[in-house]
Amino acid sequence: MREHKIHSGWKNKLHEIIYEADTPLGKIFDIALVALIVLSVILVMLESVKEVDRSYHQILLTLEWIVTIFFTFEYIARLISIKKPWKYALSFYGIIDLISTIPLYLSYILAGSQVLLAVRAFRLLRIFRILKLVKFLGEASQLKAALRASRTKIAVFIYVVLILSVIMGTIMYLIESNEAGFTSIPRSIYWTIVTLTTVGYGDIAPQTTLGQFLATVVMVLGYGIIAVPTGIVTVEFSKQKGKSLIHTNTQCCKSCSAEGHRDDASHCYNCGEPL
Amino acid sequence: MREHKIHSGWKNKLHEIIYEADTPLGKIFDIALVALIVLSVILVMLESVKEVDRSYHQILLTLEWIVTIFFTFEYIARLISIKKPWKYALSFYGIIDLISTIPLYLSYILAGSQVLLAVRAFRLLRIFRILKLVKFLGEASQLKAALRASRTKIAVFIYVVLILSVIMGTIMYLIESNEAGFTSIPRSIYWTIVTLTTVGYGDIAPQTTLGQFLATVVMVLGYGIIAVPTGIVTVEFSKQKGKSLIHTNTQCCKSCSAEGHRDDASHCYNCGEPL
Amino acid sequence: MREHKIHSGWKNKLHEIIYEADTPLGKIFDIALVALIVLSVILVMLESVKEVDRSYHQILLTLEWIVTIFFTFEYIARLISIKKPWKYALSFYGIIDLISTIPLYLSYILAGSQVLLAVRAFRLLRIFRILKLVKFLGEASQLKAALRASRTKIAVFIYVVLILSVIMGTIMYLIESNEAGFTSIPRSIYWTIVTLTTVGYGDIAPQTTLGQFLATVVMVLGYGIIAVPTGIVTVEFSKQKGKSLIHTNTQCCKSCSAEGHRDDASHCYNCGEPL
Amino acid sequence: MREHKIHSGWKNKLHEIIYEADTPLGKIFDIALVALIVLSVILVMLESVKEVDRSYHQILLTLEWIVTIFFTFEYIARLISIKKPWKYALSFYGIIDLISTIPLYLSYILAGSQVLLAVRAFRLLRIFRILKLVKFLGEASQLKAALRASRTKIAVFIYVVLILSVIMGTIMYLIESNEAGFTSIPRSIYWTIVTLTTVGYGDIAPQTTLGQFLATVVMVLGYGIIAVPTGIVTVEFSKQKGKSLIHTNTQCCKSCSAEGHRDDASHCYNCGEPL
Repeated sequence: MREHKIHSGWKNKLHEIIYEADTPLGKIFDIALVALIVLSVILVMLESVKEVDRSYHQILLTLEWIVTIFFTFEYIARLISIKKPWKYALSFYGIIDLISTIPLYLSYILAGSQVLLAVRAFRLLRIFRILKLVKFLGEASQLKAALRASRTKIAVFIYVVLILSVIMGTIMYLIESNEAGFTSIPRSIYWTIVTLTTVGYGDIAPQTTLGQFLATVVMVLGYGIIAVPTGIVTVEFSKQKGKSLIHTNTQCCKSCSAEGHRDDASHCYNCGEPL
Repeated sequence: MREHKIHSGWKNKLHEIIYEADTPLGKIFDIALVALIVLSVILVMLESVKEVDRSYHQILLTLEWIVTIFFTFEYIARLISIKKPWKYALSFYGIIDLISTIPLYLSYILAGSQVLLAVRAFRLLRIFRILKLVKFLGEASQLKAALRASRTKIAVFIYVVLILSVIMGTIMYLIESNEAGFTSIPRSIYWTIVTLTTVGYGDIAPQTTLGQFLATVVMVLGYGIIAVPTGIVTVEFSKQKGKSLIHTNTQCCKSCSAEGHRDDASHCYNCGEPL
Repeated sequence: MREHKIHSGWKNKLHEIIYEADTPLGKIFDIALVALIVLSVILVMLESVKEVDRSYHQILLTLEWIVTIFFTFEYIARLISIKKPWKYALSFYGIIDLISTIPLYLSYILAGSQVLLAVRAFRLLRIFRILKLVKFLGEASQLKAALRASRTKIAVFIYVVLILSVIMGTIMYLIESNEAGFTSIPRSIYWTIVTLTTVGYGDIAPQTTLGQFLATVVMVLGYGIIAVPTGIVTVEFSKQKGKSLIHTNTQCCKSCSAEGHRDDASHCYNCGEPL
Repeated sequence: MREHKIHSGWKNKLHEIIYEADTPLGKIFDIALVALIVLSVILVMLESVKEVDRSYHQILLTLEWIVTIFFTFEYIARLISIKKPWKYALSFYGIIDLISTIPLYLSYILAGSQVLLAVRAFRLLRIFRILKLVKFLGEASQLKAALRASRTKIAVFIYVVLILSVIMGTIMYLIESNEAGFTSIPRSIYWTIVTLTTVGYGDIAPQTTLGQFLATVVMVLGYGIIAVPTGIVTVEFSKQKGKSLIHTNTQCCKSCSAEGHRDDASHCYNCGEPL
């Protein structure tokens, strides 16, 4: 009985350090983790630059092993310090964490598994946990609320833009020759989106007078309709301004991993377990 | 007399399925139709990709025939289930539906009639009928109302932009040589619009110092005046927010095809026929 | 004495037709004039297209003579029907009108005077007189008022953008080699403005890693600060919404050419002459 | 004692001329200084244009010496007319002023020190002192307040955009071949930012179908999320509108160099010294 308590106390301690950021140790852990994630992403980047990889291959590999070993320990610690390990393992972050950890082990069994290293970039999203520490969270959640509120309108807008691109792309395919780069309807649609969003690579560009005239129509259209999402989001932002923010902390339920509890909460709002 | 009633009952049923989406059958029909339209558009796209067309020509042709036959039946059904068939046949959707259906038949008589297949992309607009089902309509109509309210202002804005493009294009033609791509005034105006809308292909670019200086003026201008349509639309959106939405359903008048009836309406707001 | 009155009556009539658009004849004159201006601009455009000019030179020249003769008569009529001809002759529109008229006459004396034809594009601005007829004026003046109110802020903004471009351009010149196109500081500044305004021709593009890194900073900056003029103009627009519009007509003072009189005005607000 | 007073009076006079712009002499000094700064920046630009430098090297060098000598005197005057010279010497403007002055002297000792001339562009920021004269300051400070208020939100936004760029860049690197220009992950990230900000150089462009499809996703995303900073800044601007502006003058504390004192202030708000 007593051993269980000690064990559970040790687990609780670990849970607090890894999953929360309210205690000094928790803060240090989170900052160290983010630093390591940034390092791991930079490693992946440097390995992709041929000249760097050729000159410093050994150093990069050593650092990669250090990162991998730390990530392995972290992954195991996350699994054992939580009450329902499978819930974490199957969560978005759980899967990202696993894929970020295994490529080096896999590379001895499977060729080309290095590709999985790219997934590490997703771990950067963990930095938003650090943001919680420095009060950035309130701003981020306001942004999120405004974007969520304008979701349907934005969806309708993007939908109209896509139909428009299909129609204009098809018309341009019929007008322009193959030489100008309009070799198929999908490619013409690609050009239309490049033009409508005012990116304008110039790898495909209309050559005929009629094609250039239609291109200007697409440009003016693209230039003008940017006003629509902007208007939508602005109105939503001005509405969000009035709403009061609930103060939350970084505690994380030991049972269901739910986050965003009120500062004065004593039970998880999701499963009712005491925090 | 009774036969007429039965006949009329059968017609009414068909009308409800094809033109409305309030009944289960009507919903299924609309979803199936949109799926088929999307398929038909993808078919047109794939046919335009040379490699795909060469390898799978027979499969594509078969699918094209299936789509054409379904579209033919749908077109006939639309004609016979409505009281005033010519009204539908001459409406925007009626003409689009006809042109989307006939290219394959015409291809046996007329060479090059495949071009008409491009019109099918317009049928994608029918998807907005489906949107009605999932309550997207309210958002879409709010967008439409805001855009309609800012119509005149946007027109004045585009008008000023076009005059500006003609003036700047003419000046650039006088300054820049033929080598830089400014071979005629229309081409210079094309370049001005490409630059003003911040698309910037780079196929035509000023080479002289004076030309590059004027180009930066056009850029800064184009970068700055984007604020105008954005401001207009944003203000209109914030006004639309206050207005109440009338709840409409997808019923469609059997006599005049008018849509957007109030949920509690018993007569058509346009021609007075009972719904 | 009586002759003077008749003469003056004939002059008044002409003034009403040419300078105002409230009478049927005045409307017809204005619409005909705009049609002719558009034709004259299209003529200048077509002459600049080599192939068209080669094939239809004689037709273009004939049309050019017709336009020139009409413009000549119009210019003389404008001069004699106004009380202070020099005031018109030295006004912005007066100078534009003169330069739009004379190039063909000058071409027999001076080679290269065709260049002046480009000035004709400015006559398109007269179309705004027509807009008065169709009630577009209120919208245009609201746009103008909002832009005038945000003038100082926009000036400060453009000023900061220019200083930023000079600084970033100078830095990029030091970092990037000549091969990449950064051959001098002015050219580097040109590149910075092309990038900052998100035009992005691609004729000059950074090649070094440090240069590309700084380029992304310029891009994100340019992408972000577009929000500033947009915010300024939007706020001004929302303020303009509340203001009431004064109804004006198209009458124009015979003495001082002032426009924008109130509908119920009996005297010119500028010089006090009866209208 | 009396000599000290005269000396101090002479110093005070100099301080008023150099650091303030409320007296006629102070205004003349500031305008002359800005004119000289603009001239010095134009000189640096012209020297960078090879053809100009070759033809007019002697004239440019002479002008450079004149500017340098004036800047030297100005720098010394600034040092002796202020109570705490080191405070100025170590301030942002103090360092910029020093670096703008010394390159010509250094060029006799150190090769390549001409590079420091680029720092002069920063002196253009002094023009904002002139703006104070013409009441632009109120507008500028309103802009600054709005931008400061939206700082955190903009930071969160840019942060999300960067993470997104890293993720999308890594994915594009895996999909696209080296031939298309995606030679390493950092280069792919560079491409993603070029595309996301709708700059679109076209030096790197996806070639595969999947790559082009993902590119359109990046474009539409970039086109849409521009709405976020715009919305943020617009809302902040509309809030700033309500706030009252404190009228400040161009006086500058002789002791601590603090600026932005209230018009009716008699003591420095920063150190308490009498103004």
